[in-house]
Amino acid sequence: MTALKNDRFLRALLREPVDVTPVWMMRQAGRYLPEYRETRGRAGDFMSLCGNPELACEVTLQPLDRFPLDAAILFSDILTVPDAMGLGLYFETGEGPRFERPVRSANDISSLRSPDPEQELGYVMDAVRLIRRELDGRVPLIGFAGSPWTVATYMVEGGSSKGFSIIKRMMFDQPALLHQLLGKVTETTTDYLNAQVAAGAQAVMVFDTWGGALTPRDYREFSLRYMQQIVDGLTREADGRKVPVILFTKNGGLWLEDMANTGCDALGIDWTIDMGDARTRVGDRVALQGNMDPCMLYASPERIRQEVATILESFGKGEGMVFNLGHGIHPDVDPEHAAALVNAVHELSAPYHK
Amino acid sequence: MTALKNDRFLRALLREPVDVTPVWMMRQAGRYLPEYRETRGRAGDFMSLCGNPELACEVTLQPLDRFPLDAAILFSDILTVPDAMGLGLYFETGEGPRFERPVRSANDISSLRSPDPEQELGYVMDAVRLIRRELDGRVPLIGFAGSPWTVATYMVEGGSSKGFSIIKRMMFDQPALLHQLLGKVTETTTDYLNAQVAAGAQAVMVFDTWGGALTPRDYREFSLRYMQQIVDGLTREADGRKVPVILFTKNGGLWLEDMANTGCDALGIDWTIDMGDARTRVGDRVALQGNMDPCMLYASPERIRQEVATILESFGKGEGMVFNLGHGIHPDVDPEHAAALVNAVHELSAPYHK
Repeated sequence: MTALKNDRFLRALLREPVDVTPVWMMRQAGRYLPEYRETRGRAGDFMSLCGNPELACEVTLQPLDRFPLDAAILFSDILTVPDAMGLGLYFETGEGPRFERPVRSANDISSLRSPDPEQELGYVMDAVRLIRRELDGRVPLIGFAGSPWTVATYMVEGGSSKGFSIIKRMMFDQPALLHQLLGKVTETTTDYLNAQVAAGAQAVMVFDTWGGALTPRDYREFSLRYMQQIVDGLTREADGRKVPVILFTKNGGLWLEDMANTGCDALGIDWTIDMGDARTRVGDRVALQGNMDPCMLYASPERIRQEVATILESFGKGEGMVFNLGHGIHPDVDPEHAAALVNAVHELSAPYHK
Repeated sequence: MTALKNDRFLRALLREPVDVTPVWMMRQAGRYLPEYRETRGRAGDFMSLCGNPELACEVTLQPLDRFPLDAAILFSDILTVPDAMGLGLYFETGEGPRFERPVRSANDISSLRSPDPEQELGYVMDAVRLIRRELDGRVPLIGFAGSPWTVATYMVEGGSSKGFSIIKRMMFDQPALLHQLLGKVTETTTDYLNAQVAAGAQAVMVFDTWGGALTPRDYREFSLRYMQQIVDGLTREADGRKVPVILFTKNGGLWLEDMANTGCDALGIDWTIDMGDARTRVGDRVALQGNMDPCMLYASPERIRQEVATILESFGKGEGMVFNLGHGIHPDVDPEHAAALVNAVHELSAPYHK
C-alpha cells in the first residue's frame, strides 16, 4: 500500500501534533453534489449505488476532487447490516428505508442470519479495497457502521420512526428479548467493522443516531453497553498503524464522560454543546470531532467563516480536534458553501497548533 | 373565587411542603381519551375546538374526571398567538399546522398585528374564565404559551419543520431581522400570558419545543433571552397568591443552569437527564417538573409503576418536584396506563415528603 500523504486526520484522532486542524463532513458524498446526483441517476436507486463497488468508489472520491478534505468516508449505509441479517431492505419513494420482515419476537431473532462480511457484505469490502487503491494514499479512509441500538430501531420498527414506540415497548416490557437482538447485531457489527479494517479502512466510526432518544439509564444499558462491546472487539491496529475509533451519539451531549470511558479514541459531537465545554468534560481521554450546525451552510460564506473561527477558538490551542458538521450535510446546500467551510478550517486553524 | 381544595401543584412549584408529589401530564386533554375524540368530532377541526370556550372547557376537564390529577391545563395551542398576529393559521390534513402568510422580510414583520388578548384572543380568555368557574377550586389551572423562538419557527418556516433551514438562515445572515420578529412575539406573548393570569390562570408554562435545535450560543441569544423577557414581564401574583412560572426547553438538559438563572420558579425537563442530576445542577433555585419518557406509557402498568419509583428516588427526599411526562402523552396510549402513572405517583411519593 502507498504511504499516506496526508495523515492529519489520523494524527488528530490520536491527539498527536498536526499543522492545521483536519476537516471532513458527514455525508460529504451526497445529494448536494451534482456529480453525485449524476452517478446516482446511473445507478438507479440508493441501494444499487451502495451495492456497486465501482460506483460507491466513484461517489466516495467525488468530494475529495472538489475540496481539500482530510479524510474520505466509505459510501454505504448503516442498514446494509440488518439487510445482510435477512430483513429484506427496500426503499419506498418518499418513505425512506423499510424492512420486509421486521423483528418483533424471539422467533424473529433466532432466525436472523449471522452474515460473513466477505460473503453477504462482500460488496462493501470490495468497495473499501477499490477506494483504498484509488485514493492512492491521498487521505485516510473511514469505515463505519450504525450502533446496535440505532440499527435495532429500524429492525424492530420496520423502518424510520419518529417515536420509537414499538422498540421502546419491547425495551420496557421485554428487556431480555431486546438484549438478545442487540447482542446479535453487536456481533455482526464487530465482524463487519473488522472486515472493513482488514480490507483497508484506516479509522472507524460508529453512528448512534438515535441513542439521544433514551433516558440516561436506558442509554447506558441499551446503547452504550453495546458500543463498548464493539470498541472492545475491534482490531485497533493495521499495517503497523493505529486504527482510531470514533463514537458519535446524536444528542448525546449529556453523556460525553460515559462515552469517553469506553476506551474509544474520539467522540463525534453535535452542535448542542460548545467544543470548549466538551473538551473540559472529556479532558485528555479522547479527541473531539465536530461540531458546526449543518444549517450554517445555508448562511453566507463570510458567516460560515466566522462560525469556523468561533468553533476553533472554543476548542482552543492544542491537539485532538477534527472539524466536522454536527450531523450530515443537507442535500440542498450550495457546494460553494461547503468549500468555504473546508478552506476556512485550514486557513484559520494554524495558530492553534504549535 | 372558591378557595383551592388541592394546591399541591402550586406549593411544589414554590418548593413548599406537600403530602405527596403532585402530578399532571402534558397534553393530558388529548386524543388518547375517547371522550376527547367525541368532543373533537362535534367541534369539527382542531382550531374550532380551541376557538370554542365551552368545548375547550369540556376537554380541559375530561382528564380530571378520570384521574386524580393535581392540575388542569388550558386546552389551546401555541399557534393562537401568531394566528392573532395575522398569519392565517390553517390545518392541512396529515400535514399539521400551516400559515397562509409566513414571515420572511422586514415588511412582513412590520405588518404584524399586536393583538389585544381580550379581543383577538378573547376566546382563550373566555375559556380560562369558564374553566376556572367549572373547576370550582378542585385543582389549579395552568395557562401557557409557546416560547418566542419556538413560535417564530412556525411563523418563518410557514408550518412544522424538521430542519429549520429558513429560520436558521435568517438567524445566521440577518440576525437583526430575527431579533425584531422575536421582540414582537415576546411582547404579544407577555401580554397574552398576563391576560390569562388576569382571567384566572394560577400558574403559567412557556413551551420551548425547538430551543434544543440550537447551539448553546444561539440558544442563549435567540431563545433564552426572550423567555427571560417574558419572565421579567409577567404578573407574578394574583388573588394574593404567587403565580409560578415554568420554563420548558425540550432537549435543553445541557442548559439547565442558564434557564434556572432567569428567575423562573420551575423547569420542565425531558427524559434525557436524570432527575437527581438535574436537581444537583439547579440546586435550590427552581423546582423541577418531569420527567418520564412518554413511551413508558406503552409498557405494562407494573413497569410504569417501577419507573415512577425510579424517578421519585432519583429526585430524592424534599420539596420542589412535580411529576410529569417529559413531553406530551402519545395519542395511542391506553388511558388505563395513564391512570397507573397518576396513581403510582401519589402512592409511592409520600415517604419522600416529611
